[in-house]
Amino acid sequence: MTSNHTAIGDTICAISTPQGMGGIAVVRVSGPEALDVVGRRWQGAPLDAMTSHTAHLGHIVDTLGELLDEVVLTIYRAPRSFTGEDVIELSCHGSTWIQQQIIGTLVDAGARLAEPGEFTRRAFASGRLDLSQAEAVADVIAATSQASHRLAMTQMRGDFARKLNELREQLLHFVALLELELDFSEEDVNFADRTQLVGLARDIRDVIDRLASSFTVGNAIKRGLPVAIVGQTNAGKSTILNALLHDDRALVSDIHGTTRDVIEDTITLGGTLFRFIDTAGLRDSDDTIENMGIERAFRKMDEAQLVLWVIDGTTPAAQATAMSQQIVPHCQDKSLIAVVNKTDLADASPLLEALPALLPEHSTIIAISAHTASDVQRLEDAIVEAARMPHIAHGDIVVTNARHEQALKAASQALTRAIDGLDAGLSGDLVSQDIRECVHHLGTITGAITTNDILGEIFAHFCIGK
Amino acid sequence: MTSNHTAIGDTICAISTPQGMGGIAVVRVSGPEALDVVGRRWQGAPLDAMTSHTAHLGHIVDTLGELLDEVVLTIYRAPRSFTGEDVIELSCHGSTWIQQQIIGTLVDAGARLAEPGEFTRRAFASGRLDLSQAEAVADVIAATSQASHRLAMTQMRGDFARKLNELREQLLHFVALLELELDFSEEDVNFADRTQLVGLARDIRDVIDRLASSFTVGNAIKRGLPVAIVGQTNAGKSTILNALLHDDRALVSDIHGTTRDVIEDTITLGGTLFRFIDTAGLRDSDDTIENMGIERAFRKMDEAQLVLWVIDGTTPAAQATAMSQQIVPHCQDKSLIAVVNKTDLADASPLLEALPALLPEHSTIIAISAHTASDVQRLEDAIVEAARMPHIAHGDIVVTNARHEQALKAASQALTRAIDGLDAGLSGDLVSQDIRECVHHLGTITGAITTNDILGEIFAHFCIGK
Repeated sequence: MTSNHTAIGDTICAISTPQGMGGIAVVRVSGPEALDVVGRRWQGAPLDAMTSHTAHLGHIVDTLGELLDEVVLTIYRAPRSFTGEDVIELSCHGSTWIQQQIIGTLVDAGARLAEPGEFTRRAFASGRLDLSQAEAVADVIAATSQASHRLAMTQMRGDFARKLNELREQLLHFVALLELELDFSEEDVNFADRTQLVGLARDIRDVIDRLASSFTVGNAIKRGLPVAIVGQTNAGKSTILNALLHDDRALVSDIHGTTRDVIEDTITLGGTLFRFIDTAGLRDSDDTIENMGIERAFRKMDEAQLVLWVIDGTTPAAQATAMSQQIVPHCQDKSLIAVVNKTDLADASPLLEALPALLPEHSTIIAISAHTASDVQRLEDAIVEAARMPHIAHGDIVVTNARHEQALKAASQALTRAIDGLDAGLSGDLVSQDIRECVHHLGTITGAITTNDILGEIFAHFCIGK
Repeated sequence: MTSNHTAIGDTICAISTPQGMGGIAVVRVSGPEALDVVGRRWQGAPLDAMTSHTAHLGHIVDTLGELLDEVVLTIYRAPRSFTGEDVIELSCHGSTWIQQQIIGTLVDAGARLAEPGEFTRRAFASGRLDLSQAEAVADVIAATSQASHRLAMTQMRGDFARKLNELREQLLHFVALLELELDFSEEDVNFADRTQLVGLARDIRDVIDRLASSFTVGNAIKRGLPVAIVGQTNAGKSTILNALLHDDRALVSDIHGTTRDVIEDTITLGGTLFRFIDTAGLRDSDDTIENMGIERAFRKMDEAQLVLWVIDGTTPAAQATAMSQQIVPHCQDKSLIAVVNKTDLADASPLLEALPALLPEHSTIIAISAHTASDVQRLEDAIVEAARMPHIAHGDIVVTNARHEQALKAASQALTRAIDGLDAGLSGDLVSQDIRECVHHLGTITGAITTNDILGEIFAHFCIGK
């Protein structure tokens, strides 16, 4: 484990704009040799004489000196650049051929192709961004809704990092008090009032716990609030899913190819992003394979924040009762909507009368025909109402990153051990060890403490050119 | 018909980088209100105080003042910009959501969404580019090979326009001489020596004709050298086409969505782009529909610069003779390769013996099995050898645009009428009318003379944001 705030050394280049053909494209070069490398292929005003943050029209030539393109070159001198190093951006014509040729000739002139996220990694290495801010850069780029964008921007601007540093300082002050006690321990003097110390530790742990638990909301905003659709085969689950997704199907394709690892069907309803998880049909079965599918359906219900139980309106009440005994135990701490479908085909009133007694309080029952647009709209409204996401104000700190949630939980556990130790009258040096561990876990979030493995893992999910 | 060198007035904005998600994206704003429009959503150094060609870190906020993104703003003041107007480029995070939000808030602040090619059209309108240069911008962006890129760059840099202006001046000098003759006509004085004038006109026409005829090469470089694949059904045309395209299939997808209007299968072999045109199987038939397909096959052979005649190796010599009588008349002025296929299945030697007598001189005969990689390689070599594209040196003027070719041909025809008139002793005023028409046609290429319809047609094929 090392602090990694050192320059990396060589000079990298990449196409930073989206792949493909467009009006213009931007090739970015960063590193101590950026001016020298570009200078070998540049025909225009001398680079050495340029002041930082200025743009210049000129030509990029290939290895043989033949004109490749007319470009606008913008120069950012260290440390006043995104990476903190000398950076040159070449705005060229957006032909894929030209983009590739320019990259090729820059590599030939001494640059190296950048790895994914390597520009941002250098910004972290040079201290321009802390690790949580660097991670937020990828989130900002991947954001597809106002809420997820707002959270990512807040994190990128460093609000989360500042909060963590504040906690860190409080904890280090805490350790200082404990170690002061330690130094004078032979004289049996308690400089730190233990009751006060426990109160202080509990306050800090409350803040850390609140941050950790905000991950449920943060993850729902970033990846979509998870909604499990359960019910018997042929109850109409797929029809309802398609009806819900119908108009915004295009949104789904925006998610493909991002840094997200799971692709499910997502849609924005009433400003909230929902992630619908279709499950295998539920029924009693002795078939092992089928039971595995049902087990998986239960797991997905457990992970969901909202469960849609789709029921064929013609189902006898007794059968619905049997089903509810399977489903309801998995819905204790979440919203449940019972969707009675196919009401256009049969009289569902016996079922609708039986249902309320079967469901937990605060459940919703809605009778629809999935083929009727107005019914689908009512279902959407019910989903939005049942989800009721908390409003995130600008500047609210919400954890959106599973790595951060884990670090916060580990920090909280270490702090709990410290509190228990104080309560049990353990000596200051033992307690301070737990608090130092808490500080350590918080440090892994901001990158004050990190390893190359962690960094490699984080930046591998970035796009090339960022 | 008007010269269109006036400013357009309103302020436009567009995403200029390729569609989709990337590290960064660039939003471009151009027009007299560019600073005011961006200023309404900009938090950073005051725009009015910025000098041209400088870059500034700051924030773009939405209509409600909420932060949308941290951006780098680069300012280009009129007339030192691509369009000749005030231009602002915002380099933002490459999220599709952010890109759309920034465009949305700029439109809300008073900009208008740019039409395809509108930035380049404004560069033309402000006199920064002539029309042939503006058209070359789209060609530069669409170029997928060194040869097509080189031609487009030459045209964009104005070499073609300079040549046309040279011709135009010579022609106007010519008209001046003729009209001088006219002024003194009552005195029956011939200031212009008609023999000298005819010689001069022929020289100019030769240059124009050479430019027009360079279109065959230019078009082949830009769109791919057209190769018609003909032969009987089941001779193996499709197998051979697939074998030829196999490894570079990805190249084809680069062509989709460009400004090219016809999509055919293209591939680069030996540095030359080939455009393969598959045709209906040839055979004698009384069926009208089938004969239409065969008619079309003949037309494609006429348009091609190279014909691949694919023959099943088991075809009896008599049948090949009958086929050759259909095919050979369409191959008089082009290369023909007879590809004897399926040599792994049967003894093709009778056919191979009969073929040489059936084909024009300089034809190539090649026996292959399309399933053998080395045979496919031999066929590729034969195709490259038969195509033998002339080497285009840097700076050679080659016409690549069908509109320019047509204008050059019309100019040549008008000049021919003028030469005939001089030969026939027509009066100077009649001859000068033809020469003025020649000047007019050259002017439509550079845009000295143009209409909104022509401009609309040209720029509609550009990408948005350029």
